[in-house]
Amino acid sequence: MTEINLSKQPEIFVKMVLDAWHSKTGQLDKLMSELSDEQLLQEVSPGRNRGIYLLGHLTALADSIFPLLGYEKLAEHMFQPFVLTPDKQTDAIPTIQDVKQDWTRVKTKLAEKMATISANEWFQKHTNVTAEDFEKEPYRNKLNVVLSRVSHVDYHLGQLQFLKPKQ
Amino acid sequence: MTEINLSKQPEIFVKMVLDAWHSKTGQLDKLMSELSDEQLLQEVSPGRNRGIYLLGHLTALADSIFPLLGYEKLAEHMFQPFVLTPDKQTDAIPTIQDVKQDWTRVKTKLAEKMATISANEWFQKHTNVTAEDFEKEPYRNKLNVVLSRVSHVDYHLGQLQFLKPKQ
Repeated sequence: MTEINLSKQPEIFVKMVLDAWHSKTGQLDKLMSELSDEQLLQEVSPGRNRGIYLLGHLTALADSIFPLLGYEKLAEHMFQPFVLTPDKQTDAIPTIQDVKQDWTRVKTKLAEKMATISANEWFQKHTNVTAEDFEKEPYRNKLNVVLSRVSHVDYHLGQLQFLKPKQ
Repeated sequence: MTEINLSKQPEIFVKMVLDAWHSKTGQLDKLMSELSDEQLLQEVSPGRNRGIYLLGHLTALADSIFPLLGYEKLAEHMFQPFVLTPDKQTDAIPTIQDVKQDWTRVKTKLAEKMATISANEWFQKHTNVTAEDFEKEPYRNKLNVVLSRVSHVDYHLGQLQFLKPKQ
């Protein structure tokens, strides 16, 4: 087995996680480009969340990454209707065009910010953990926020896929 | 910003990814404990894959991690029916009891193997990449295999969730 210089791994690990994020958000974009607005207004399965709700939910959760990295949210208004409120409880939600625009805005700005963060900074604590806890749990860093959100995107991608007609 | 000693981070990345794997497989186990065999024989959504198929699929894909890490597969017989063949094309598939047993066997042995791999080894190339390609693409390491499979579990977990009755 080759001995690897582990001191060179932090940049590689950051790339692994950010590539995974960009790959998943790219898959979501591709799926969105294949679905009509009418399809996005359907439930993904009988009695379950609608496509518009899941896209709003993913937008609000992506937006909630900003403060954990130390930045301001871009789409705070999405949190109430798409995270705190279950789907179909209120008609007062943004239109599908607005949700799509917010998704693109949040995803784009997030990618910009992510690109400017150094490896050293990715391994700093995220803003929701105290310095004392971080001392004991150093994996509660900024990169781990993105790592867990990659998987969350996939969870709902699997559901959104059902909006496409069966092959 | 505190300066972090990045050379101490590799063990932390490994923990981040393995914790994510154990957390997702734990979620799958919890869901399985809540679903009856009858529920697992249902389609997750009308016309889509059945629960048994998705559990078999996740078992076969978890099993396929072994050779990428340099070990033998435990449940090779799962690959044909649950990866190469679409659901409901054949009745010749293992029973739900067999699938559950194979899932537990694969998951348990994989966790054992994962625990013995050193940080240095996790950042070695996985077996499906050539030394030459790995030189150029050092993120194609063993840890990245697990990272991508975490997300794949979540993709299908989101679908399997639909087997539970609506709240």
